[in-house]
Amino acid sequence: MAGSTYGTIFQITTWGESHGEAIGVVVDGCPAGVPIEASDIQFYLDKRKPGQSKYSTPRKEADCVEILSGIFEGKTTGTPISMLVHNKTQRSSDYSEIASYYRPGHADYTYDKKYGFRDYRGGGRSSGRETIGRVAAGAIAVKILKELGIEVLSYTKSIGNVEIDYNRFDVNSIETNPVRMPDAEAAKKATLLLDEKRKELDSVGGVIECVIKGIPAGIGEPVFEKLDANLGKAMMSIGAVKAFEVGSGIHSSQSFGSENNDQFYYNEANQVRKKTNNAGGILGGISDGDTIVVRAYFKPTPSIFSSQDTVNKSGENISVQIKGRHDPIIVPRAVVVTEAMASLTVLDLLLLSMTNRLDKIRDFFHR
Amino acid sequence: MAGSTYGTIFQITTWGESHGEAIGVVVDGCPAGVPIEASDIQFYLDKRKPGQSKYSTPRKEADCVEILSGIFEGKTTGTPISMLVHNKTQRSSDYSEIASYYRPGHADYTYDKKYGFRDYRGGGRSSGRETIGRVAAGAIAVKILKELGIEVLSYTKSIGNVEIDYNRFDVNSIETNPVRMPDAEAAKKATLLLDEKRKELDSVGGVIECVIKGIPAGIGEPVFEKLDANLGKAMMSIGAVKAFEVGSGIHSSQSFGSENNDQFYYNEANQVRKKTNNAGGILGGISDGDTIVVRAYFKPTPSIFSSQDTVNKSGENISVQIKGRHDPIIVPRAVVVTEAMASLTVLDLLLLSMTNRLDKIRDFFHR
Amino acid sequence: MAGSTYGTIFQITTWGESHGEAIGVVVDGCPAGVPIEASDIQFYLDKRKPGQSKYSTPRKEADCVEILSGIFEGKTTGTPISMLVHNKTQRSSDYSEIASYYRPGHADYTYDKKYGFRDYRGGGRSSGRETIGRVAAGAIAVKILKELGIEVLSYTKSIGNVEIDYNRFDVNSIETNPVRMPDAEAAKKATLLLDEKRKELDSVGGVIECVIKGIPAGIGEPVFEKLDANLGKAMMSIGAVKAFEVGSGIHSSQSFGSENNDQFYYNEANQVRKKTNNAGGILGGISDGDTIVVRAYFKPTPSIFSSQDTVNKSGENISVQIKGRHDPIIVPRAVVVTEAMASLTVLDLLLLSMTNRLDKIRDFFHR
Amino acid sequence: MAGSTYGTIFQITTWGESHGEAIGVVVDGCPAGVPIEASDIQFYLDKRKPGQSKYSTPRKEADCVEILSGIFEGKTTGTPISMLVHNKTQRSSDYSEIASYYRPGHADYTYDKKYGFRDYRGGGRSSGRETIGRVAAGAIAVKILKELGIEVLSYTKSIGNVEIDYNRFDVNSIETNPVRMPDAEAAKKATLLLDEKRKELDSVGGVIECVIKGIPAGIGEPVFEKLDANLGKAMMSIGAVKAFEVGSGIHSSQSFGSENNDQFYYNEANQVRKKTNNAGGILGGISDGDTIVVRAYFKPTPSIFSSQDTVNKSGENISVQIKGRHDPIIVPRAVVVTEAMASLTVLDLLLLSMTNRLDKIRDFFHR
Repeated sequence: MAGSTYGTIFQITTWGESHGEAIGVVVDGCPAGVPIEASDIQFYLDKRKPGQSKYSTPRKEADCVEILSGIFEGKTTGTPISMLVHNKTQRSSDYSEIASYYRPGHADYTYDKKYGFRDYRGGGRSSGRETIGRVAAGAIAVKILKELGIEVLSYTKSIGNVEIDYNRFDVNSIETNPVRMPDAEAAKKATLLLDEKRKELDSVGGVIECVIKGIPAGIGEPVFEKLDANLGKAMMSIGAVKAFEVGSGIHSSQSFGSENNDQFYYNEANQVRKKTNNAGGILGGISDGDTIVVRAYFKPTPSIFSSQDTVNKSGENISVQIKGRHDPIIVPRAVVVTEAMASLTVLDLLLLSMTNRLDKIRDFFHR
Repeated sequence: MAGSTYGTIFQITTWGESHGEAIGVVVDGCPAGVPIEASDIQFYLDKRKPGQSKYSTPRKEADCVEILSGIFEGKTTGTPISMLVHNKTQRSSDYSEIASYYRPGHADYTYDKKYGFRDYRGGGRSSGRETIGRVAAGAIAVKILKELGIEVLSYTKSIGNVEIDYNRFDVNSIETNPVRMPDAEAAKKATLLLDEKRKELDSVGGVIECVIKGIPAGIGEPVFEKLDANLGKAMMSIGAVKAFEVGSGIHSSQSFGSENNDQFYYNEANQVRKKTNNAGGILGGISDGDTIVVRAYFKPTPSIFSSQDTVNKSGENISVQIKGRHDPIIVPRAVVVTEAMASLTVLDLLLLSMTNRLDKIRDFFHR
Repeated sequence: MAGSTYGTIFQITTWGESHGEAIGVVVDGCPAGVPIEASDIQFYLDKRKPGQSKYSTPRKEADCVEILSGIFEGKTTGTPISMLVHNKTQRSSDYSEIASYYRPGHADYTYDKKYGFRDYRGGGRSSGRETIGRVAAGAIAVKILKELGIEVLSYTKSIGNVEIDYNRFDVNSIETNPVRMPDAEAAKKATLLLDEKRKELDSVGGVIECVIKGIPAGIGEPVFEKLDANLGKAMMSIGAVKAFEVGSGIHSSQSFGSENNDQFYYNEANQVRKKTNNAGGILGGISDGDTIVVRAYFKPTPSIFSSQDTVNKSGENISVQIKGRHDPIIVPRAVVVTEAMASLTVLDLLLLSMTNRLDKIRDFFHR
Repeated sequence: MAGSTYGTIFQITTWGESHGEAIGVVVDGCPAGVPIEASDIQFYLDKRKPGQSKYSTPRKEADCVEILSGIFEGKTTGTPISMLVHNKTQRSSDYSEIASYYRPGHADYTYDKKYGFRDYRGGGRSSGRETIGRVAAGAIAVKILKELGIEVLSYTKSIGNVEIDYNRFDVNSIETNPVRMPDAEAAKKATLLLDEKRKELDSVGGVIECVIKGIPAGIGEPVFEKLDANLGKAMMSIGAVKAFEVGSGIHSSQSFGSENNDQFYYNEANQVRKKTNNAGGILGGISDGDTIVVRAYFKPTPSIFSSQDTVNKSGENISVQIKGRHDPIIVPRAVVVTEAMASLTVLDLLLLSMTNRLDKIRDFFHR
């Protein structure tokens, strides 16, 4: 129950602070025989790393992954995979000041109350750099899911009030614009909004949509370990995520059963299909074989450069202007983090589902 | 990881199907010395039980709790508390028909795919009756939280498009109207909507808001065991919940940092307070001492009496009209379920937080 | 981590006190499709129940199992199986006296120190009746293991200083003598010893050996979840077990590598075999395909009828003579408990092992 | 359930192979405010490191610990502590040969069967070097326990048939002889035995005794999470441990209740004490306030240099002579490993016990 471990069978443990020596993850319970090279991991870390565009922090970190265990002759051995990234450009001096006060919207105050003191260098453990471990581990989960025909795709659905238009949806454009929107026109509008807000020393929120294709029906456990409950926890565990929905989610609360129920039919190949997908691919907490659709709602980056009121530890009400290197928007860099969390969650429940039926267990051991 | 267990220290395991012998729960890890009588449990079960109004299923179940272990001389002993409710009026005959087809919006199809067959009597384990165990266990958590000065309160925020007005917020009206809205006027409108939709053989969705007061700052663990991540999982695990938010949640994704950040100040008693509560009482996944505010979005009851298209197991596309006893709206009876889940979650993390600091641990053992 | 839950995938939660209403267990994570009738469970409970011979407590309990959930049309559904046994002949009056003092060798004192008070009726939760839940759950595990070709067999290896002779080993005699020894001659000697000690108002300890046949190589996880570590915990969790060994165990600590190493060879069917089995079927914590052999060492029943010194709660040193209904030896009735714990442990690790290799996972999902 | 994680509240995850880049551990759930320097960790690693005497492997490894996270300004922050040791002198060439065959007494065969292939460099994950992570984490647990007045002490009780004499017990001599026996005379005999066996290219087993002083009564959870069950698992999880006992353990199985029961009395300070300690400080799985005494039985090192029969992967029965750098006895270097495992286990259950009583919880939060 220690907070930095996630998963039951495919289990990851992350560690590290934004301005410590390094940040890393241990992946345990990874099946043996998965071909993994450092470049498989680096590909995803590069999507997360800072300095990708003018909309992300100017902190320059190569975020080069080192793999220290669990891989032998290019394949996972079944034993723990330890990976880490050294922090190279930590400039703690930026933070000497914030040691004395609590930044609004940050976890400074709550860490102090919880632990009696805090590592005040750039947020310490509550920094977004913590997600490096998730992304590195997620890269392995993605690879395994692909082997099983399952694809996880995330993209920016909206930034501020700029939303993508599904009629212009183009998966190829996701990586060709700095905001990772699958709609070039919306992306343009979003960058204009960001330019404006950056000038105002302000920041912007947004929504990431994550779709999972190819997942068989039957994944997720009844009652407390529902697939959507776990995806919800996975997404809500990402700093700055303040809401989560599956399928028609929020809208469904204002709709009627006759509209919201997805009616079943047999397609030409005699497979059970749904006419609509308000369920977002999950019924009773269990995958129904349809595309899974979830969304994570991100608040605006709390670090803004305009003046804010707050308190210091000497008991004074003060005004501050935060320094340092911060993103005016978190969303584009968080896209790969949601992919990682979705992949870790789905893989773990997929592995668990192997034990659901006696007939399949018997086949497994008696082949 | 079996799906029917929840919590790490204060841990519950629920069991039972809607039309089986009984439904129950085992609570393990409950501190010794909590005064508990059956009536403490029954009080909450009565809020959940069917037949409370014309907007809930006409199935008549007294849902009388029996306590079988873990209480001695009126107090918890520290060992497992087993509680159950016998199903009295299961009329499985209602369900003989649905064995052959999949009800839209229900888990019939996914259970069949997962397990190879299903208990088709009224949803079996996926029935809302499953929540009896949660509510019984939650009643104990509520009692402990009260002893610690923490209060959990849920109510209906909206039904369909009818929303409460906070200017008319009246906590006393929650239990005086059948929809559990803390606004008598909105409640009236909501019942009119329900009357209309019932006549149309349709059903309606809604939103439950849950507030937690008196929780100290410092509860919730970094990274994966954040308080909001756990509350999100808790709420999303309730059947029919399709979205979850904390504080200004969804709205924050369209706002700017300058608006959304809650600025700190010292109040007259020299305590750190926030000028606003967009955070919903949680910063970096850890309680900040402010009121915690979360919301669960419920889809409309999938069981509607109008005709729907679906498939049967013989490979045919068919039309069905579902029979049985169903709620045209789930929300009012689910209010107490959200209270239970919030209480269980907060209590578990509260107990865990006792181990956060060496100085406090030393005090604990050396007093 | 609450203490009454065991297992990760096949997970059981037991509850109940010796003199409460009932004693039971919830089995969650049981694969769907296992044919189970009450008689399958009762068969094992009957081996555990009191009053089987003059060497077990004269308390008369039928210990009839009721199954309340998780079985539909004769098969497990994949959802929690709730089972219980009502206590019928609890005579708490026997225990009114022991409320005031601590019985030597019992958990009276430690429960009081832990919880501030205790359910003093017959040991409460620390009573041997707690194992009813284990045995009921174990009966299901045994059934599944049999389907997979795995057999778990326990028997009494020694009582006091009377040990079986493997040259006379006869599996059929286990159930034909009251001490469950697979050697009729040793059994006779053991009963004479018990008769003598019973007259002296004393009690006797003993050793149970448990062998597991047909388990494939590869079960058990490296480092902390080794098969032998888990079997050790399983056995040590049985009240009165004070030591545990696997294979040549204790003896191996006095032997040399040249003697203790089991050398490998190919048998005629070209299968890898070991010339000896000092390892007890486990190498590096992982099953090697050979018979698993473990032993649990039981202390003598602490409830003896002769006079003992102890303390009461009024601060006095006193002498007591315990009343009530007690076994002069625990071992014969505990044989089935060790079978249950071994079966639960092996099944859980067996299910977990299904996720060890990518090639097998791919086969599983792509067939 | 992934095998390399241990503990519930104070939770460790170890990683690394004997001949990989590095070996390490992540400690999560460590209370904030524990003063820790690298030298605190190094002190214990030095007791474990190779090359301490002629009775341990001549592999020269400094085993210098690096702390990468979780410590700020000399104290633990409450977030994960990542520690590692780089492997410096891995000479994989030593092992190119063993890739083709299975060493008797080692886990080569079982890893191959489990995972389809193995990291054959020196045992990979099954190597004794895996315990570096345990010892590093254990050093932190030891430090916290000391702050709480609890001391854990391990020493060699016997090597082969040479046993210590308690009349000559001298705690100061443990670190002054190469076999870590608290009896100089026995130590001398033991080294003679080792010299002899080393010349014969053979290896020897032994027993480690571990005593825990100052632990309050009430630690350990009923039924499955008993203190002795957890200590049993902890010890059995150490490679080469084949048996475990608590208190009079094995002997108690041959004794009678009248001898084995520890009678209670009030001492002069009016405290409850036991006249004897056959229980080894644990009654009903819960600490009784007395010294806890447990023992771990180690088999002889499986790596011996004399010729042995085994099989190769080409299907042939062969004879082999193992090369490499191996200990003729594991026990002296494992002493600190048992201390680490005992400390981790006791600390975790101690922290958990803080949640046992409502009155103490109320005090904790209301002070």
